[in-house]
Amino acid sequence: MAALHHYFPILTWGRSYSRVTFADDLLAAVIVTIMLIPQSLAYAMLAGLPPEVGLYASILPLAAYAVFGTSRTLAVGPVAVVSLMTASAVGEVAAAGTADYLTAAIVLALLSGAILLVMGILRLGFLANFLSHPVISGFITASGLLIAIGQFGTILGVPVRGDTLPEIGTALFANAQAINVPTLVLGVLTLGFLYAIRLRLKAMLMRLGLGSRPADMIAKAGPVFAILVTVVAVKLLDLGARGIALVGEIPQGLPVPGWPVIDLGVVQALFVPALLISLIGFVESISVAQTLASKRRQRIVPDQELIGLGAANIASGLSAGYPVTGGFARSVVNFDAGAQTPAAGLFTALGIALATLFLTPFLADLPRATLAATIIVAVLSLVDFGALWRLWAYSRTDFAAMAATIIGTLLLGVEPGVVLGVVLSLVLHLHRTSRPHIAIVGNVEGTEHFRNVDRHQVQTVPHVLTVRVDESLYFANSRFLEDRIAELVAERPALRHVILMCSAVNAIDSSALESLEEINQRLKDSGIRLHLSEVKGPVMDRLRTTQFLAHLTGGVHLSQFAAMRATD
Amino acid sequence: MAALHHYFPILTWGRSYSRVTFADDLLAAVIVTIMLIPQSLAYAMLAGLPPEVGLYASILPLAAYAVFGTSRTLAVGPVAVVSLMTASAVGEVAAAGTADYLTAAIVLALLSGAILLVMGILRLGFLANFLSHPVISGFITASGLLIAIGQFGTILGVPVRGDTLPEIGTALFANAQAINVPTLVLGVLTLGFLYAIRLRLKAMLMRLGLGSRPADMIAKAGPVFAILVTVVAVKLLDLGARGIALVGEIPQGLPVPGWPVIDLGVVQALFVPALLISLIGFVESISVAQTLASKRRQRIVPDQELIGLGAANIASGLSAGYPVTGGFARSVVNFDAGAQTPAAGLFTALGIALATLFLTPFLADLPRATLAATIIVAVLSLVDFGALWRLWAYSRTDFAAMAATIIGTLLLGVEPGVVLGVVLSLVLHLHRTSRPHIAIVGNVEGTEHFRNVDRHQVQTVPHVLTVRVDESLYFANSRFLEDRIAELVAERPALRHVILMCSAVNAIDSSALESLEEINQRLKDSGIRLHLSEVKGPVMDRLRTTQFLAHLTGGVHLSQFAAMRATD
Repeated sequence: MAALHHYFPILTWGRSYSRVTFADDLLAAVIVTIMLIPQSLAYAMLAGLPPEVGLYASILPLAAYAVFGTSRTLAVGPVAVVSLMTASAVGEVAAAGTADYLTAAIVLALLSGAILLVMGILRLGFLANFLSHPVISGFITASGLLIAIGQFGTILGVPVRGDTLPEIGTALFANAQAINVPTLVLGVLTLGFLYAIRLRLKAMLMRLGLGSRPADMIAKAGPVFAILVTVVAVKLLDLGARGIALVGEIPQGLPVPGWPVIDLGVVQALFVPALLISLIGFVESISVAQTLASKRRQRIVPDQELIGLGAANIASGLSAGYPVTGGFARSVVNFDAGAQTPAAGLFTALGIALATLFLTPFLADLPRATLAATIIVAVLSLVDFGALWRLWAYSRTDFAAMAATIIGTLLLGVEPGVVLGVVLSLVLHLHRTSRPHIAIVGNVEGTEHFRNVDRHQVQTVPHVLTVRVDESLYFANSRFLEDRIAELVAERPALRHVILMCSAVNAIDSSALESLEEINQRLKDSGIRLHLSEVKGPVMDRLRTTQFLAHLTGGVHLSQFAAMRATD
Repeated sequence: MAALHHYFPILTWGRSYSRVTFADDLLAAVIVTIMLIPQSLAYAMLAGLPPEVGLYASILPLAAYAVFGTSRTLAVGPVAVVSLMTASAVGEVAAAGTADYLTAAIVLALLSGAILLVMGILRLGFLANFLSHPVISGFITASGLLIAIGQFGTILGVPVRGDTLPEIGTALFANAQAINVPTLVLGVLTLGFLYAIRLRLKAMLMRLGLGSRPADMIAKAGPVFAILVTVVAVKLLDLGARGIALVGEIPQGLPVPGWPVIDLGVVQALFVPALLISLIGFVESISVAQTLASKRRQRIVPDQELIGLGAANIASGLSAGYPVTGGFARSVVNFDAGAQTPAAGLFTALGIALATLFLTPFLADLPRATLAATIIVAVLSLVDFGALWRLWAYSRTDFAAMAATIIGTLLLGVEPGVVLGVVLSLVLHLHRTSRPHIAIVGNVEGTEHFRNVDRHQVQTVPHVLTVRVDESLYFANSRFLEDRIAELVAERPALRHVILMCSAVNAIDSSALESLEEINQRLKDSGIRLHLSEVKGPVMDRLRTTQFLAHLTGGVHLSQFAAMRATD
């Protein structure tokens, strides 16, 4: 039973569901639905898919997450970065606009769902931790730029395809003479309108006496106003005839659940992209879910979140949708609007289903440039070059990881970019720990304290050398320690004792143990005894299972002070 | 000038060269030369190359290392594992016995030399640290097995080719009916003879009154006796006519220095193998060099060693040789025989040059089975399954890395095997540090000490939670910390303060810093203050460059005791 409740969180919150929470959830769902309609159409367009696919990806996936997810307020559905990654991945295996392209997107959702499910069941959520903040931050900034520049083409009336900055740039310049002026005017006006709403509307509404929260909600519905206004403009001024690209006929009605015809070659080609989409989507989703949950002291279970997102993606694939994850902006709106339980997600799904049934005829006259403008405004808020300078101040290695991810993503595309960032941040981390800080320490006169000889006025004696290693000892730094000690010993002809102060050593792996044996043996050959001091309990427990302590020429001392007295 | 001496260690030791060291070096060189002649022929055969290539690889490379190397006693030349790796790599791009095969081996030496040189100049020696002891140990054990089984074919008179255990095994069984009985008899007798010498000769000689060291030297020359005896037997009994494969005509004379015709496709195909050969060769070489140097309190400079080995490999490639490195057994003999300076290497090179000029006619009648027997005896001493059980007792992860490397190398071949081992050991290391030990600590009554509540009888209060993280905080574990704290907080409704005890935190990267900001913010949203205690100096220096301390809701306390008092 406990296991059932673990895997189906709906059994826990569903039991105590009340009329009050129903009202709260319903209000939040209405607001999120209004926000999600334009977003789902826009992100589907960004993914190179027909607009209805965005709507389909906003119905069943939300219901699936409501059953399996542990966040009370996460709003699942299409998001910008995952849509860009979808376009990049699917564009490799099929031509845009074909039935194969759509099928590949569906397969990608199923594959990504399966990967997330398996990761959740096998508790592999820790894999997502290898995406460091600088890499994610750099990736999102670069993706935001790629998306904005690509959508800029739609606003110029010259939609461009391309996975990298050079490709998109070349396509833009090559088609520069094809710019459609009415589209450009409409696009720029919409952009200006959206920015004005974003920057001014909330303050205006508050001056009119509205509270901060409702004012914020209304301001966030800016894209809806833009859609209403431009659709009406298209109808009144017959802008379609002036060359403004419209969304066009959207099939009315709910998606027909079904299983796509799966080509094994496509699955193989999409596996790595699906893995990256899963990891990036999971990291984005869990981070907003954690932030919101902690505001109400609720708990997120990361491995169950993987299952929730996996179920959502499988539901998306089974209902002709494409990969989804938890979106940042929508989740915050859902939370602020008062959503109490995942039922809000169920009601949002219902809202989108109703929109799919009844609203689609109205959307046929929607200019694509309007959607492009909403995307640009949304993604430019993701671009954060300021993070680069903050990182520069704090850590050059983290700066390098973020800069490499940005440059890699812009020049090579989303997948190579993120892989480059992950590999580089791992290598830099290993490089750092492979050259740990090793201090020579001496006694602070009159005390039992020992400090770095380079930083403090301390006493040392020529026949004893004490080194403190500020890092766990493992294979990547064990040889460094050997080299460093050999070097220090070679400089000190009077040396008779070496004390290794282990207060900062949290672990010693077998490579490091062999290095210690080696160091002990070499020192012995030179007539020098090796001592350890301040070894931590768990490390000592491990050492006791080996022959090392029997071979050790010196002693193991509880404190550095005791070690010094033993070498007198 | 200092730089010149750094890059040319010969300028340092050469200046103080004396007649006494000359005599010592010369004696050592004579002994090593006697040992090296059969080894160089045997390892060339193992690499699938004509025997003279082994001799060529034992002349100029030794001279080059004597100029650039920092070890006084390292004996450079062909070694077993690198020869196996050469056979595997070159076998991928050319058919054994062809001129292309020889050229590819030469290109491999040049490539490996260039990689080592570049690594030395860019100080990338730390890359070798990513080969953990379990991986190297597993790789050498598996290589030893592969070599021994392959050479067993030569002893049966059915030489087999193959890079993996299944391939070699299949080839052996497929050719089982082709066994040549005279070869088998000769091979088994030689094996028995070599083992008898290895196990008994030293003790026998010592009983006859010889000192331990000369007795050891003579015992190590066992292969030379085997060669003498079997060549004489071949001549007397005309064994060549009985189907015993002989080494055959060896071109008399020194190698003609030259630059091979280099095919870019071959270079590309050999790059990764050359990198692996460089790393494995370097690790093996540096480890014996360090061990020997420390016995005389001398210093090895790892980055300069890369340059020394790089120069040796380039010299090998320029003189029709194949990849070389510092050999364990020969270096120990060189050291024990009294070598004082790298001049011993120069004299050994001279010795091999003389052998190439005058000894080769005699070696034409050498049975290949004799060489195979010497290889088997040499490599079986590399096989160390005992290490597996020692690792099992100390660390399951290290055991897994070694076992995977052995199995991977046996089943997939040398390159995939070592890559698998490296990747697995990195993943296991990251996995371990991604789930650090996090202890809840309490006060030991009446003291200022704080200990794990699970291990000790300590006091805690319900409104304060103190956690101690036993690991540096970085991207792979920062989210784990977030999750763990969120979990602990959700269980404690009375909580008002969280203290993070940082005594074991050696570094905080920017991802972890963002996580701390996140934790601080979330705790603030829940009305809980976050404090830090016992932050190390360098970590605190870093934190001072950020806004984190300004945002921190609680304080930073010098000791955990002070932190507890501040939360009263």
